[in-house]
Amino acid sequence: MGLPLVFQKYRGEIDRELRAVLASSDSTMYDMLRYQLGWIDEQGKSLLIPSGKALRPTLCLLSSESISGSFERALPAAAAIELMHNFSLIHDDVQDNDRKRRHRSSVWAIWGKPQAINAGDAMRILASASMLRLSDRDLPVERVLRALMLLDETCLRLIEGQYLDISYESRLDVRTRDYLKMAEGKTAALISCSLEMGALIATEDTCTIQAFSNCGKNLGLAFQIKDDLLGIWGDKAKLGKPVGSDILRKKKTYPIAFAWEKADELARTMIERIYQRDKVDDSGRDVILNILDDLHAKEQTQTMVDMFCDRAWSEIECFLPSPWAHDRFEEVISFLTEREY
Amino acid sequence: MGLPLVFQKYRGEIDRELRAVLASSDSTMYDMLRYQLGWIDEQGKSLLIPSGKALRPTLCLLSSESISGSFERALPAAAAIELMHNFSLIHDDVQDNDRKRRHRSSVWAIWGKPQAINAGDAMRILASASMLRLSDRDLPVERVLRALMLLDETCLRLIEGQYLDISYESRLDVRTRDYLKMAEGKTAALISCSLEMGALIATEDTCTIQAFSNCGKNLGLAFQIKDDLLGIWGDKAKLGKPVGSDILRKKKTYPIAFAWEKADELARTMIERIYQRDKVDDSGRDVILNILDDLHAKEQTQTMVDMFCDRAWSEIECFLPSPWAHDRFEEVISFLTEREY
Repeated sequence: MGLPLVFQKYRGEIDRELRAVLASSDSTMYDMLRYQLGWIDEQGKSLLIPSGKALRPTLCLLSSESISGSFERALPAAAAIELMHNFSLIHDDVQDNDRKRRHRSSVWAIWGKPQAINAGDAMRILASASMLRLSDRDLPVERVLRALMLLDETCLRLIEGQYLDISYESRLDVRTRDYLKMAEGKTAALISCSLEMGALIATEDTCTIQAFSNCGKNLGLAFQIKDDLLGIWGDKAKLGKPVGSDILRKKKTYPIAFAWEKADELARTMIERIYQRDKVDDSGRDVILNILDDLHAKEQTQTMVDMFCDRAWSEIECFLPSPWAHDRFEEVISFLTEREY
Repeated sequence: MGLPLVFQKYRGEIDRELRAVLASSDSTMYDMLRYQLGWIDEQGKSLLIPSGKALRPTLCLLSSESISGSFERALPAAAAIELMHNFSLIHDDVQDNDRKRRHRSSVWAIWGKPQAINAGDAMRILASASMLRLSDRDLPVERVLRALMLLDETCLRLIEGQYLDISYESRLDVRTRDYLKMAEGKTAALISCSLEMGALIATEDTCTIQAFSNCGKNLGLAFQIKDDLLGIWGDKAKLGKPVGSDILRKKKTYPIAFAWEKADELARTMIERIYQRDKVDDSGRDVILNILDDLHAKEQTQTMVDMFCDRAWSEIECFLPSPWAHDRFEEVISFLTEREY
């Protein structure tokens, strides 16, 4: 299933807004940011096709347009959300020691970890700077402050989620409840913020804003659990990562938390033994894959994706005023359920 | 020379404000932040005496009180500045691989680098959250936005300075001009922001605000150059670092940049040879110390400190309306010139 057309509709405008935020940044430090955003290659040469789906800013603009009929006013917030997402990716790669991101070298793999930390820090500040551009789009200052507060609160929840994710690496007894707490912060918070932000800029109706926020939270969980599924059973070529890569990295993703809960004593002991070693090797990974198969973990994981997508839909359905908005959200939600990359 | 009394005057209020900002943060992640702020020890036990001078928030409050006669309205901004400073310290320690900070283990030395990155990221967001509390102190929203913008711009300059500092480690030809560009970002930007912020909250007079900003920039340079002096010739017991520690770490501080400019060909070749090795050892450090001695680098460095302090004073002198303000600034500036820790 391909990317819904609405992603193409906004892509150019998002890119223009992002470039305007970075326009006056002339230190060579910002090359790291331009590289991360897919505008230049390692040598500083311009690239024509931006990388990444720009899922979050697209959701923000779609939410705004669905409610008010136009998306332009939300552009600074959409850009801010994309910058915040990229701040978290740069720091994640440093923290997880990941040398690859979107089929390219990660920022730290090129510039080293100390400078990559700076790149992430700068990206985060540019997100706030982008938000302040909302004032130029005739949003009253009180609403700009509210939007800023939402972005900051979201960022804290994102960092709290990342903190849990890292702390789970050295823990065995991560259950689905613990997993969901982590995923709500690490992934769902920013996706929820994307939809809530678009709504906040389009309307003052608190019920509508809350509905979009709730929809986003469920969509975010669906997105992360689908990501977990692909992180174990995904197509190597499409993802740019080896099969079962999340297992090799001891990540406590949904399928693993599910297996830990459902496994009998024998299987649990086997999981324990494998994860207690310093490194999980290929044979350890295959044992885990077999246990997951026996427990039908892949099917159960997809069932959870579908469930959260259904919930996302039921939260928002009554708040979509036009058939256009209805159809666009249906496409986006289906895509997130069925995507293979 | 001891810490001026004005530091004691504000200390309790700054601490109360900081604690209020962190009050609702209940994830164990925030233990790292409380540790960094000196409120708890490694085991989570409360500490009674907060560590650090709280120089920057003190400057912010002093600036506000000097202009308007009261400092209370600036407290959220003062706390924000201290949080931002601590954000940069946490990330600096990770980047520089420093296991010690203020005679204690650095955050990463206890919790590991991935989690320390999270701690710094969270500290930075709490700085913005603290700024938003200015609205509760009857500052008009437009001014709150302006103050937020100042904090963000300062943070970007701070990160740009840190970027230069790291990039200079692998460079030999760092001249005093390059050094000053780095120090203006890394240190002077936040000290300048501290005074400008206090002024911004106390008055709408742009000349006054600019004067405090200029004063802070010069004071910041004096502070950093004094720090460089102590980093080479400081008292080990007072600083908690070995003599010449900045040389061992190949830091291009003011005395080194000065020596590089002034040294004859022979001395330059010796500096080159020492810094081109993977690690600078004790004998290499002693050679560098001798070269610095021959060039009277210590005296020249103190001359620069005095010069920037004089400039700081001349920028602000006419803008201090009361004898009280006059005396307090005189004390603070003298302290920064003469301090030994």
